[in-house]
Amino acid sequence: MLLGSNYPSSSLSDRTLETVLRERRQRLAREIDCSVVLWAGRGKSRNFPANRYPFRASSHFLYLAGLQLENAAIRLHDGQLELFYDDPSPSSILWHGETPSRTEIARTIGADAAFPLAELPSRAGGAATIAVQNDEVRQQQASILERSLSPLDDLSGIDRQLVRAIVKLRSQHDAGALAELRQAAAVSIEAHKAGMATTSTANREAQVRGAMEGVIIGYNMACAYNSIVTVSGDVLHNERYDGALNAGDLLLADVGAETPGGWAADITRTWPVSGTFSSTQRDIYEIVLAAHDRAIAAVAPGVEYRTLHLMACETIAAGLVDLGILRGDPQSLVERDAHALFFPHGLGHLLGLDVHDMEDLGDYAGYAKSRARSQRFGLGYLRLHRPLEANMLVTIEPGFYQVDAILNDPQRREAYGDCVDWERLAQFADVRGIRIEDDVLVTNEGAEVLTASLPTQAEAIEALVGDSP
Amino acid sequence: MLLGSNYPSSSLSDRTLETVLRERRQRLAREIDCSVVLWAGRGKSRNFPANRYPFRASSHFLYLAGLQLENAAIRLHDGQLELFYDDPSPSSILWHGETPSRTEIARTIGADAAFPLAELPSRAGGAATIAVQNDEVRQQQASILERSLSPLDDLSGIDRQLVRAIVKLRSQHDAGALAELRQAAAVSIEAHKAGMATTSTANREAQVRGAMEGVIIGYNMACAYNSIVTVSGDVLHNERYDGALNAGDLLLADVGAETPGGWAADITRTWPVSGTFSSTQRDIYEIVLAAHDRAIAAVAPGVEYRTLHLMACETIAAGLVDLGILRGDPQSLVERDAHALFFPHGLGHLLGLDVHDMEDLGDYAGYAKSRARSQRFGLGYLRLHRPLEANMLVTIEPGFYQVDAILNDPQRREAYGDCVDWERLAQFADVRGIRIEDDVLVTNEGAEVLTASLPTQAEAIEALVGDSP
Repeated sequence: MLLGSNYPSSSLSDRTLETVLRERRQRLAREIDCSVVLWAGRGKSRNFPANRYPFRASSHFLYLAGLQLENAAIRLHDGQLELFYDDPSPSSILWHGETPSRTEIARTIGADAAFPLAELPSRAGGAATIAVQNDEVRQQQASILERSLSPLDDLSGIDRQLVRAIVKLRSQHDAGALAELRQAAAVSIEAHKAGMATTSTANREAQVRGAMEGVIIGYNMACAYNSIVTVSGDVLHNERYDGALNAGDLLLADVGAETPGGWAADITRTWPVSGTFSSTQRDIYEIVLAAHDRAIAAVAPGVEYRTLHLMACETIAAGLVDLGILRGDPQSLVERDAHALFFPHGLGHLLGLDVHDMEDLGDYAGYAKSRARSQRFGLGYLRLHRPLEANMLVTIEPGFYQVDAILNDPQRREAYGDCVDWERLAQFADVRGIRIEDDVLVTNEGAEVLTASLPTQAEAIEALVGDSP
Repeated sequence: MLLGSNYPSSSLSDRTLETVLRERRQRLAREIDCSVVLWAGRGKSRNFPANRYPFRASSHFLYLAGLQLENAAIRLHDGQLELFYDDPSPSSILWHGETPSRTEIARTIGADAAFPLAELPSRAGGAATIAVQNDEVRQQQASILERSLSPLDDLSGIDRQLVRAIVKLRSQHDAGALAELRQAAAVSIEAHKAGMATTSTANREAQVRGAMEGVIIGYNMACAYNSIVTVSGDVLHNERYDGALNAGDLLLADVGAETPGGWAADITRTWPVSGTFSSTQRDIYEIVLAAHDRAIAAVAPGVEYRTLHLMACETIAAGLVDLGILRGDPQSLVERDAHALFFPHGLGHLLGLDVHDMEDLGDYAGYAKSRARSQRFGLGYLRLHRPLEANMLVTIEPGFYQVDAILNDPQRREAYGDCVDWERLAQFADVRGIRIEDDVLVTNEGAEVLTASLPTQAEAIEALVGDSP
């Protein structure tokens, strides 16, 4: 029995939600003078109009309105909240049952006033906004505001002010956010344990995925992103699940839950299908784990995230030198991006309402003002490049991969020919991909790992997986 | 262990797919003279651009191209197939691994030629098409065809010819389709059994849903539609899963799998949370089951689906008269739509690549030429009104519900005051909603129930659910 009696409440109590939301809009009011209108968005059809993907409101809307209200909008001004939402139609009640009225919803979220949607155009003048992920609604936004919405790389005026204000607010999680984020983490941990426990009796990737997502669905949560559950960990964004599980394989699972309120977790573990790491797998696993542990140990307010990334890179480079896969001084190897042959992505990202939090705002959230992406092979994929702040939640997720497209690239083979022992590397052919990812809250004392109760030590992982029958 | 060694192959073998697709386009060529261009569509973002809903290609595209190829198009002319698809970029290979090239895909689906997408505008002139479920791609369709796409209710010319041709083809399933539909049915049956088996140890709807969808995901399939798993069966399109399971409740589960190729199953069962129907629940269950069995027994080529619907309505009315809930002659009760107080929806719909097959075409598929929806309360929600044909797959899904919005509507209470014994009805308060739904293939001999190995008999259901611990 995976699902115990500790069923988490699906969201904050109404009273708490109202308080949380009021504090958020008061904080917003301190950051921006003009009024703000945010749209929730609309459901999207899958193969025919009535068959729709589960609705997911815009994260900015959720942050300030709390509820997944399809086709709603809110207006914020001076800490006041107006809700724009149409009461359900009689036919909707027939098919979908009684749902809360506009008035009831307004009370739940502590709105100061509530109007039908038709009132929005007359009250939206001069407001700042953020474009939602829906072309149709985006056109509506422009039409109601009577102006075009600039693309992110050309943002100016009040919309840019709003983006900066929202980034500031959402980067530092309040108690309401943290309560939800802890729930998402707890359920994701259970999902990973279920995946490990299922592996010994599974013969396909999909079965492990089914066990993991079944837990998440069982807690009335959704997947925060499309799961990666694969024995081909070298395919970084693998979304296939049809691979066979064989005794010598490592299974990489990157699976996270999202609460009904929209808050995400993001966990990766890598475990041996057989229940026991081979000696080569264990060697590399320990290097990735050392990078993970060293980065987390260095988390503290004021520390540059890029510094953590480079520490992880150096730990990996040093480990690979020890194993004889790389040659040279670890620091010099990182300076020439040799680590990126095996660890080509960034150490992690912000985590909150989005699994890559606020990535709809491009690098506005991830990169400090006036910083831009590096062109370097070993730094260009870094999603986060700003000093850490208390109550910021980040992932720490170093990895090791043997990506054919990188390692067989003739240019790279030439550029790094002097520092890679390809014959030695060939002995590690049973390590296609390893990643270890936790969700780390920056605290005044340093760090709190929200996902710490899911072990990372190789022996503990082996114990959870168990032996194949 | 739910998932046995009988893991179904994820799709037809390549060789079979090629043959199936060739026969389909030859059939299409016999129905339409002009060339046809069909678009697969594109993925849709959820909360930020890189976090997308799982891609699902347009069903018309899938029918003739077989594979879920994002951002692809095909051109059909005289039984010939041209594929338009861009080879993956180097950065896509880095993150998504090696995926089949345009040439390899063309070979798999038996295309006669293959081009980059940029070639499509020069080869699409004069083609008929069907609009996809994506605004952006729909604008592309219009731009490439250099004409507007008419809405369904104003369709004319070659696009209407194409719709009629596609409806004719897709209404009668070929062997390739049936192989996939049987796989979807088999996995859905396992999912329902898992849901029943989990109920005795579950205390929330979501846990049962998790067990059911976990099975579907475990077979590397998707849900063909948003599951309904609820103790509030009276909410017909219920998509909440946060209800508590209590001993006296009936749990209604409408859950179906979709194969990787896109073919759907659609099954509903209703079972007692305690493992035992109360006498009132059993009485109503037996009525719904009688309607279900009678309709299926009457399935045969040439039979009007509406006749089956009316037979089911009459069976329900007769049963409710026997129980003393309704008064009068069953046939007369159905003529005045009194059955619809408790069975307000239609008996079922076409099933194929879409769970409501071809519903993106409005009633073109469901309704025979020149037939239109009835305005009658008891017939207006009927999705299928045409004579059955061999190899047509339909659902048969009668139900009984106590929908507050219907039963407490003063107008209806007055209109049906003479034929409803409200006091007697009150004794059945523990029956909020019951539906029994199977997937029925029309054969030359009559009917084959693809979902028959999932029991419908009350006693068999009770045995699968088991008793609460």
